[in-house]
Amino acid sequence: SINKRTSLSVRSAVAIEKETPQDERPDTFLREADGPSSSVRARFEKMIRDAQDSVCAAVEAADGGGKFKEDVWSRPGGGGGISRVLQDGGVWEKAGVNVSVVYGMMPPEAYRVAKGENSVEKPGPVPFFAAGISSVLHPKNPFAPTLHFNYRYFETDAPKDAPGAPRQWWFGGGTDLTPAYIFEEDAKHFHRAQKNACDKFDPSFYPRFKKWCDDYFFIKHRGERRGLGGIFFDDLNDYDQEMLLAFASECANSVAPAYIPIIERRKDTPFTDQHKAWQQLRRGRYVEFNLVYDRGTTFGLKTGGRIESILVSLPLTARWEYDHTPEEGSEEWKLLDACINPKEWI
Amino acid sequence: SINKRTSLSVRSAVAIEKETPQDERPDTFLREADGPSSSVRARFEKMIRDAQDSVCAAVEAADGGGKFKEDVWSRPGGGGGISRVLQDGGVWEKAGVNVSVVYGMMPPEAYRVAKGENSVEKPGPVPFFAAGISSVLHPKNPFAPTLHFNYRYFETDAPKDAPGAPRQWWFGGGTDLTPAYIFEEDAKHFHRAQKNACDKFDPSFYPRFKKWCDDYFFIKHRGERRGLGGIFFDDLNDYDQEMLLAFASECANSVAPAYIPIIERRKDTPFTDQHKAWQQLRRGRYVEFNLVYDRGTTFGLKTGGRIESILVSLPLTARWEYDHTPEEGSEEWKLLDACINPKEWI
Repeated sequence: SINKRTSLSVRSAVAIEKETPQDERPDTFLREADGPSSSVRARFEKMIRDAQDSVCAAVEAADGGGKFKEDVWSRPGGGGGISRVLQDGGVWEKAGVNVSVVYGMMPPEAYRVAKGENSVEKPGPVPFFAAGISSVLHPKNPFAPTLHFNYRYFETDAPKDAPGAPRQWWFGGGTDLTPAYIFEEDAKHFHRAQKNACDKFDPSFYPRFKKWCDDYFFIKHRGERRGLGGIFFDDLNDYDQEMLLAFASECANSVAPAYIPIIERRKDTPFTDQHKAWQQLRRGRYVEFNLVYDRGTTFGLKTGGRIESILVSLPLTARWEYDHTPEEGSEEWKLLDACINPKEWI
Repeated sequence: SINKRTSLSVRSAVAIEKETPQDERPDTFLREADGPSSSVRARFEKMIRDAQDSVCAAVEAADGGGKFKEDVWSRPGGGGGISRVLQDGGVWEKAGVNVSVVYGMMPPEAYRVAKGENSVEKPGPVPFFAAGISSVLHPKNPFAPTLHFNYRYFETDAPKDAPGAPRQWWFGGGTDLTPAYIFEEDAKHFHRAQKNACDKFDPSFYPRFKKWCDDYFFIKHRGERRGLGGIFFDDLNDYDQEMLLAFASECANSVAPAYIPIIERRKDTPFTDQHKAWQQLRRGRYVEFNLVYDRGTTFGLKTGGRIESILVSLPLTARWEYDHTPEEGSEEWKLLDACINPKEWI
């Protein structure tokens, strides 16, 4: 709960520098002062960059035509990112896979919470490091589901005026599936893959992070979730750091095997205009969640992150019909029901 | 500035009751305790309901086919509303014109600000009344602009334990135009109509409310406005109450003559897929503004207002392309430039 309060404060008070486009990908976005390649920062950056390569390769192979376009940028104070976007492909209408490394300063109030309330000396702003991979894949076919995943690592430095003070660190992330139509075998396959990744580390992870995911992707004003969930966790630091790094890597490596087989099964399913319109309405809900509730998106918009990278999560097209209610018992109704009343899939 | 702080507090702390559908429009949504038909509350309600009738009649006449569908609702504690929506018409893809009357309680902290900081007794929650008309009209043709207008009146009652305490009241609202392509004659006609309405009351109104509009409809993360503006004002109470009631009425009555002639000129203009795609991108910006920044929308979503009425402002369809930049000097670029650098049209 210390970390929860800390990260909330960070989210509301940090602003980051404007990014500059780069011609080439650097080997690393880290600063020299970040230490050796064996540091958690360095290994996490390598993990997310490898995951970006492998997910993009799997998506291009399944798309059978579309190619990712790459944008690289950096910031004067350090850090940067690589955005890859495939638009109007054979299978996906918009697929974004981004990595970024951010250095910033968190306000001293947040750090005082971390040090303990009864600390008397007032430290200056606390430097922090954050790195993450973030991806949303929106297919064209209304029977093929949207996938989102995001894994991130956060670390504070000791403030300059308190060199011995403890560092804080935590992991966050998750992978979740958002179809417009339910295929039970797809939902089971997807959740099974999440559970397998979790079970390698702790039997409590899947049930806990599955529920966290259902709670997080909640569109409060609709009383419904945006999709069928998956796993989600945030501010996680109450386990061994090496174990959590391995867990985040395992989750990122599970994305392609959890998702691509579903796409292969659904990408060529014949559909009608009505199926497409329903998909578009659900894409509208996706927009509502991301712009109104998603912490990453709203944080990014407020702090001056790279807008095009942040909003690549929005679908190519979306639709809002006034007072649309699916007929009870219809396939559309079944999806909506599962978004209102989350199910156990395995 | 007292009112500004008060209304901000109200917006963050009020929750309203769930609405119930009604079969028939009542003659009034006011409570008996609101006083005679000569009260400002009663005359404001009559004004917005008359404006709803006349704008809907003008839109149906210009649409040449589409008809508004009406939903009436009320709340157990008093108040209610009428939503009218025309979807997939001849000219408009989605047109919503709503009126509502809301009773609620504002937290005592907000009222203490209104009474003066050095007041010692602690009053209970303060009852308030709010009524308004709100409308967004999205045409199909990419050369025909979207229109938004909203006029509202807010009043507090004296708290029960301080019957002699002063009541607070204020007016807010505005009318603004959002085209995907600029026609100078349209922008001039529209702004001229706003200025004419303003000039009947105070020569300072148009320049002041034109700038307020440019400042308000700002999509901060994009550095651009959502459209070509118009007029906007909020928390207005530093003029005679009767004068402001007459001003709001004049503005509402200016909507149809300011907008319908533009629609008549543009509704049948031939267009290409590229024109339509650009309109859809601008509709995406409309969604971004409304879900991320608009006070009415974010207030409504948080306090439990009628979701379908609040989100009828969203377009039927919208589009987000990654990193889209119009060619310099193109018609699309001219629109974007006017959204980044607001112009004086008259």
